Amino acid sequence: MNTQSVVERIREIIDDDTLVQLREELETYHVADLADIFQELKPDERLTCFKLLDVEKAADLMEYLNPQIQVELLGDIDEEMASRILTKLPHDAAADVLGDMEDDESETYLDKLPHKFSEEVRELLTYDEDTAGGMMNPVVLTVNSDMSVKDVLNHIRISATEDNMELYYVYVVDKHNHLMGVVSLRRLLTSPINQKVQDIMISDIVKLHVDDYSDFIIDEFMKYQYNALPVVDLYNRLKGMITWDDVHDLFEEETTEEILQSSGISTEVVDEDEILSGNMFKAIRARTPWLFITLLGEFVAVHVANHFEPTFSLLPIVAAFMPLLAGLGGNIGTQSITLMVRGLSTGQVTMSSALHHIIRETCIGAMIGLFFGMIVLLATWGWKDSIGLGCVVGLAMAVNMTMATVIGTLTPLALKSINVDPAVASGPVIATTIDVVGLLVYFSLVSIYLVHIV
Amino acid sequence: MNTQSVVERIREIIDDDTLVQLREELETYHVADLADIFQELKPDERLTCFKLLDVEKAADLMEYLNPQIQVELLGDIDEEMASRILTKLPHDAAADVLGDMEDDESETYLDKLPHKFSEEVRELLTYDEDTAGGMMNPVVLTVNSDMSVKDVLNHIRISATEDNMELYYVYVVDKHNHLMGVVSLRRLLTSPINQKVQDIMISDIVKLHVDDYSDFIIDEFMKYQYNALPVVDLYNRLKGMITWDDVHDLFEEETTEEILQSSGISTEVVDEDEILSGNMFKAIRARTPWLFITLLGEFVAVHVANHFEPTFSLLPIVAAFMPLLAGLGGNIGTQSITLMVRGLSTGQVTMSSALHHIIRETCIGAMIGLFFGMIVLLATWGWKDSIGLGCVVGLAMAVNMTMATVIGTLTPLALKSINVDPAVASGPVIATTIDVVGLLVYFSLVSIYLVHIV
Repeated sequence: MNTQSVVERIREIIDDDTLVQLREELETYHVADLADIFQELKPDERLTCFKLLDVEKAADLMEYLNPQIQVELLGDIDEEMASRILTKLPHDAAADVLGDMEDDESETYLDKLPHKFSEEVRELLTYDEDTAGGMMNPVVLTVNSDMSVKDVLNHIRISATEDNMELYYVYVVDKHNHLMGVVSLRRLLTSPINQKVQDIMISDIVKLHVDDYSDFIIDEFMKYQYNALPVVDLYNRLKGMITWDDVHDLFEEETTEEILQSSGISTEVVDEDEILSGNMFKAIRARTPWLFITLLGEFVAVHVANHFEPTFSLLPIVAAFMPLLAGLGGNIGTQSITLMVRGLSTGQVTMSSALHHIIRETCIGAMIGLFFGMIVLLATWGWKDSIGLGCVVGLAMAVNMTMATVIGTLTPLALKSINVDPAVASGPVIATTIDVVGLLVYFSLVSIYLVHIV
Repeated sequence: MNTQSVVERIREIIDDDTLVQLREELETYHVADLADIFQELKPDERLTCFKLLDVEKAADLMEYLNPQIQVELLGDIDEEMASRILTKLPHDAAADVLGDMEDDESETYLDKLPHKFSEEVRELLTYDEDTAGGMMNPVVLTVNSDMSVKDVLNHIRISATEDNMELYYVYVVDKHNHLMGVVSLRRLLTSPINQKVQDIMISDIVKLHVDDYSDFIIDEFMKYQYNALPVVDLYNRLKGMITWDDVHDLFEEETTEEILQSSGISTEVVDEDEILSGNMFKAIRARTPWLFITLLGEFVAVHVANHFEPTFSLLPIVAAFMPLLAGLGGNIGTQSITLMVRGLSTGQVTMSSALHHIIRETCIGAMIGLFFGMIVLLATWGWKDSIGLGCVVGLAMAVNMTMATVIGTLTPLALKSINVDPAVASGPVIATTIDVVGLLVYFSLVSIYLVHIV
């Protein structure tokens, strides 16, 4: 599907005002495609299209739309229709939409929704939205351990027709709703129909706690690779479940945060969506803190360079090599930071293998440094016809690149060892450190050269 | 579970040579935990533990281990046992393990495996491992459209007990194995048992083609959020299916590649695992190409600076500000690159919204630039007691930061518009460009200052 051409066709149909044709056109698309189309439409076009969808499809579509558009559309259709759509959503999705509204607006909707549904959604809204409690779907299919496979299948036939129930596993609970075991649908379908649930359930369950945070939830899903995990409270009472598609969005968000942080964009105070498309001052607020740190660090670099001011008058070409040294030091240092931060994040680098990585990276940095140092030596020698200057710049390059690798490798590991997230702004701080140290090395070499050789 | 302490306990048990106790200890862990433990053990300890597992658990564990350890363990146990473990694996997992072995080694195993299984695995090995064909599991539960729900449930009861079948959806095919529709287990379990499959199946199917590449597969899974997608050949014949957990690993790999590329590490010729822990020369090969580009770019910067050599003799302090300008320009430019590359990758930035983002980023860059320019102006004025120099450095800073933002925003979008992956080495190229342009601006301002004011 070419979204752009579909969007143009839909615009033409809207302009011709032939709503029947528009409805037919919209019906041909999967809701995931519709979500892409809606993203490209203007708000009024979006609303026209949305009003033509039946409740089922509108509810399905909601789950694929981004929060901004969800709230916009629900606010623009009549409240009756909005309430009907909301009750078709899984509770966690409904809670997400309502959580993104202003408080009084969401209260209006909650009052209009069926009592049981709104009570359950209200409970979800009491949890921090970054915890398992805030993410889970509270509607879970539960059975008792003394039921037979046949009983369970009958129970599913009756209960699982509700729109907002997701079905991956059947959870076994006692009469106080304590989680006892889990049975996969596959196990259920391949077991003799008279067998008791307690004989086929797995009782050694991987489960989440309502207060578990998103990064822990991602780790658990990544590690155990289940489609869904149950969520329990402090007393092991089953409160809901989280499915892999919830985690998928979360995983993408966390990855985005990790990537943005590594280039010095703070995602703690400003939501990552807003950095790209929200209020401009929020974006500025997210971007300036680490720029300040760079500013302070580079003032130190300026001070170092200033200290060697007489050198510039004596041998001005020395200054011209500064960007070369800083550029390559920064580049190879960033490579090391990136490798370490990513390796720590995926688990390929562990604290027990830290020493191995430090030694390995140092060797790699030294080899690349010597190689590039040699090139720079020859290039400078050829260009300025001074082997002395060539040696100074080449040696500075070799030392600089090696040190940049060491600093870029050590710092994330050091931060990790004191439990600071190495992704947070390692980048700018390390880049600045490399700049300052690189200049010190370079100017020291230049000074030795000037004193002893020239 | 604290992996480190478990590993130590296991080492103690191995040293005491009490294998019965070791077997009991190992049985208490989930295979995902065992995989973490195995990762930390030494090869001989790993082997001792692996030999104690029963075939079922050993096969389960295989799927959680990394390829290196999989091949190592299978090579070290006797071939009989290795074959039994392989036949318990889903075909795609078995093909992955065999694909990672030397050709003659994998042939030895393939000859030992049951004929049907080895034929199916051989077929998988003919596909490129980055395509749907190379990733799919060919064992899929299929039914005919005129079967009733009851027939299907009976069919599942008989067929789905094989270890290597994954069960998420039931696929409906005609007698030539052409894919006609799909039924979810939930739909199956909640439909009347006499209903025909053709009445409950979805025939508008999201499917993959055997030749589809991994990035397309990821996009489809991310977009439609299904647990599994069917894979068909050119003639719409069902060949297998891919499940979300396969895609999850793929997604993590692609994300790692995107992150490494953005810092100028080439992942095209060298596998990303090897960059962190393989042969050192491969790591060097992955890291040097973009360092060379930086080297060439920075030689241009050196040339620019060299052109202004007389300035350094006249007003040597000018040189000292170079790292400050380059550092902050590089930092804010990197922020913009990161935002654009990530936004393009997640779909938050589209080509139709490109102009909006360019304007928005430029405004943000200008505002931050003016702000930092002002700070630098005041700091320099105060430090060197020269308002003229302060103005030059402050203005250079403002222009530099604004331009860095524009270059950092425009370049990824321009690359994308000519269908070049913007993640590939945008970073180093743009950083170098910003350095060169920044120096030109700075020295031009300095020259004007020297001519007109001093």
